[in-house]
Amino acid sequence: MEKQVGDRGSVTDRGGPVIDTALRRAFQAALGPDAVLDDPLQLRTYECDGLTGFRRVPALVLLPRDTEEVAAAVSLCAEAGVPFVARGAGTGLSGGAVPVAQGVVVSLARMRRVLEFDPEDRRTVVEPGVTNAEISRLAAPHGLHYAPDPSSQVVCTIGGNVAENSGGAHCVKYGFTVHHVHALRVVLPDGSTVRLGGDAPETAGPDLRGLFIGSEGTLGIATEITVRLLRSPEGVRTLVADFPTARQAGDAVGEIMAAGIVPAAVEMLDALAIEACEAAVGAGYTRGTAAALVVELDGLDEECEEQFRDVVAVCRRQGTTKIRVAADARERALVWKGRKAAFAAMGRISPDYFVQDGVVPRTRLAEALDRIAEMSKARGLRVANVFHAGDGNLHPLVLFDEKAGETERAERLSRDIAEMCVELGGSLSGEHGIGLDKACSMPRMFGEDDLAAMERLRKAFDPDGLSNPGKVLPTPRLCGEPPGRYRPHPLETAGVVERW
Amino acid sequence: MEKQVGDRGSVTDRGGPVIDTALRRAFQAALGPDAVLDDPLQLRTYECDGLTGFRRVPALVLLPRDTEEVAAAVSLCAEAGVPFVARGAGTGLSGGAVPVAQGVVVSLARMRRVLEFDPEDRRTVVEPGVTNAEISRLAAPHGLHYAPDPSSQVVCTIGGNVAENSGGAHCVKYGFTVHHVHALRVVLPDGSTVRLGGDAPETAGPDLRGLFIGSEGTLGIATEITVRLLRSPEGVRTLVADFPTARQAGDAVGEIMAAGIVPAAVEMLDALAIEACEAAVGAGYTRGTAAALVVELDGLDEECEEQFRDVVAVCRRQGTTKIRVAADARERALVWKGRKAAFAAMGRISPDYFVQDGVVPRTRLAEALDRIAEMSKARGLRVANVFHAGDGNLHPLVLFDEKAGETERAERLSRDIAEMCVELGGSLSGEHGIGLDKACSMPRMFGEDDLAAMERLRKAFDPDGLSNPGKVLPTPRLCGEPPGRYRPHPLETAGVVERW
Repeated sequence: MEKQVGDRGSVTDRGGPVIDTALRRAFQAALGPDAVLDDPLQLRTYECDGLTGFRRVPALVLLPRDTEEVAAAVSLCAEAGVPFVARGAGTGLSGGAVPVAQGVVVSLARMRRVLEFDPEDRRTVVEPGVTNAEISRLAAPHGLHYAPDPSSQVVCTIGGNVAENSGGAHCVKYGFTVHHVHALRVVLPDGSTVRLGGDAPETAGPDLRGLFIGSEGTLGIATEITVRLLRSPEGVRTLVADFPTARQAGDAVGEIMAAGIVPAAVEMLDALAIEACEAAVGAGYTRGTAAALVVELDGLDEECEEQFRDVVAVCRRQGTTKIRVAADARERALVWKGRKAAFAAMGRISPDYFVQDGVVPRTRLAEALDRIAEMSKARGLRVANVFHAGDGNLHPLVLFDEKAGETERAERLSRDIAEMCVELGGSLSGEHGIGLDKACSMPRMFGEDDLAAMERLRKAFDPDGLSNPGKVLPTPRLCGEPPGRYRPHPLETAGVVERW
Repeated sequence: MEKQVGDRGSVTDRGGPVIDTALRRAFQAALGPDAVLDDPLQLRTYECDGLTGFRRVPALVLLPRDTEEVAAAVSLCAEAGVPFVARGAGTGLSGGAVPVAQGVVVSLARMRRVLEFDPEDRRTVVEPGVTNAEISRLAAPHGLHYAPDPSSQVVCTIGGNVAENSGGAHCVKYGFTVHHVHALRVVLPDGSTVRLGGDAPETAGPDLRGLFIGSEGTLGIATEITVRLLRSPEGVRTLVADFPTARQAGDAVGEIMAAGIVPAAVEMLDALAIEACEAAVGAGYTRGTAAALVVELDGLDEECEEQFRDVVAVCRRQGTTKIRVAADARERALVWKGRKAAFAAMGRISPDYFVQDGVVPRTRLAEALDRIAEMSKARGLRVANVFHAGDGNLHPLVLFDEKAGETERAERLSRDIAEMCVELGGSLSGEHGIGLDKACSMPRMFGEDDLAAMERLRKAFDPDGLSNPGKVLPTPRLCGEPPGRYRPHPLETAGVVERW
């Protein structure tokens, strides 16, 4: 915040505007007194998201009830030069919803209405605070569901899914949030309201809808979201295949995809991940096996059957030691409960862990796993692997013990894994976003001109840098250190951010 | 062009910069003398694209050979303040490639190299001048193909497909260009080169790749395009079902989709379209039937078979009078040849015609067809319908005779049909783009704030308005008249554009 601010804010010695009494009253007048939180104890709830390594208490939390109130809140921020960040359930894993110093959190927790529900046209219009799972729950009686299914779907909100372009286990077949959101009502960083996308499958003009989805809060706040609902498949088959090595499991994935089968999901868990899941959920994965694949097939009954036979044949050729099939919906739910609890379950086998999220081309999956194993050995830290294998979307979990002073080493290992993904022709992030966590790694993946293009785009909508600043794009202030070499984070040195 | 220009151009009384000898020499030095066309006869070839109603001879045509030459050409344009437009095969139907007054055409006809071809990872990197069909031809020996298939695929280029986010008959199942292009190398309007997207299915940061695709030449020029290749399906079934009314055919489409079947293609032709196709190709459609559906199913053999039986049952319930099935690849090719020749075939039954391209929600398809029939009757002009029914993407062809003075009436009718699509909750354009043709209708679909957001975005990359100006977004100069009321086009009154 280098910028001189208006009569509602003043520059403090930390360089950010302060929210003074006049601005606080203006927020209260616009949203009602109960929609403005400033009690230090209440504010503490908002200090971090699922990436718990970064913590920062906001100056104020606002709880608007509708688009008009969001627009009023953002307009006041724009006028006063106060930075803001939108927040859903706070389950994000890249620090995207971490508050901005001296800034405002716009919590969308009160915006949970379903505005339209049209099973015939297979779409619904919801507010951003509606949870992902709630949409599918509503649609189920009509034989419909909402496809993207992040592991946190029971609590995470559709607004957060839009910000992060969230994926999930079934994205290998059905695509990401961007493929299932038709239209958005958005409050831009200057407080104006626009509609992006449309009711028809294709619309006219540049695809601002697609641009907004995955922009991690840097282009404004979505306040109404039109999602499409898919017809739920006639048949579903879920199997778990054990393998004596991770490489064989990886090769089986490659062969399944190469055969032209598009499974609804292909997940892989290694021995450590299985150990943690079993300790937490007891879903029935085989303890001690080197790797397990969860393969789900869906579609017409006959199609499922044929693909099931093909997948079994591939697993056998690749040396599977055991294949088990979920006999009914209850057993299938258990398999998924185990898989989806994997991150949280790490607490059972390690005091601390970092979740990584990188992508490699599917053909280089086995190579990536080998390199992770080498890096893990070299650094003397365990790495559990549980991931969307069909997409090449890795989620290595770096296990460590803060009390034993392993944090820095673990952080370095986790970052090295992400950058190795880029080296292999992949991406820094598959579905968790860049946020605060990986902004400084962006130059590993993009050239200066590429980053300048992103910056230009951002400035077009947010010239003063108020909408979730410091996220996604690297800044000299944020990323003083040369890439790859670990130094304490500048925000940490400045005491703005506390360590894990 | 209000802007004062540098030493290479000068402002003329028409308000645009002139390309003087110094600038022409600079182009020749950068690209070689044979890459700069200025012979009036040669220039005439570039005066229009598939929308033949707008014609404008460019000042110069450049023929770069690679990314570096495109960057050099664009840099010189940027420096001199000269507008430019990229051009592929010139088959676009919305005037997107119509030259800009006093401007440069950057023809990509020489950039036809296949830079990488990787059947294992199922992708290829090509230059923009490679034709759509050429990609599938290369991929075929590996059992792969490129999915989007515009009717013009034998001649249209992948660069043009990227600019327009082109679709085609099979997009109802497989999606549009944006779903099949992983990455792009792009020369921005200031001459800098960036890479958008990446090799992995998902990438980090805002989706500039998705934004660029469909931006109709307003954000720069794509010079390298990484497309993904799909495995060609095991089985294909193609049937043609005749119906006594268009409404029944429309209802059959609705019922097929509602049953959860996702056909590879669902096309509809009405009596007039069939008459024209048969006159041109003789593919064997039933002359005199009110409507025919072409339904193609693909996938595993068994899946195809089951879906085929289901589709036949739906057609029977909706009162089909005849169903014929393509017995082999040759017959299937003939069915498609008839369908894809439909636009060109109109010449057989009408001296002149306009192609419209609007989208309606699929559930309102029958209603839209009824309204087109009423409008056609009220205006006393025939309208042939041939379209992507599964997507709700209409292509009404308004038939008229210029010599009988029907042009204005036809133009009005065509525009009314597009705007009726917006009224029904659809879109002005499905796959042909906005271009020059529909820029003035954009306010029918978007509010002022929405258009301002698009303008802001465009300005971020092209502050001086040099990259295909006057297209997509309405400008007061372009759209002086109140919407809906026909007046001669200002460019026409000024003698810049000639009429049909």
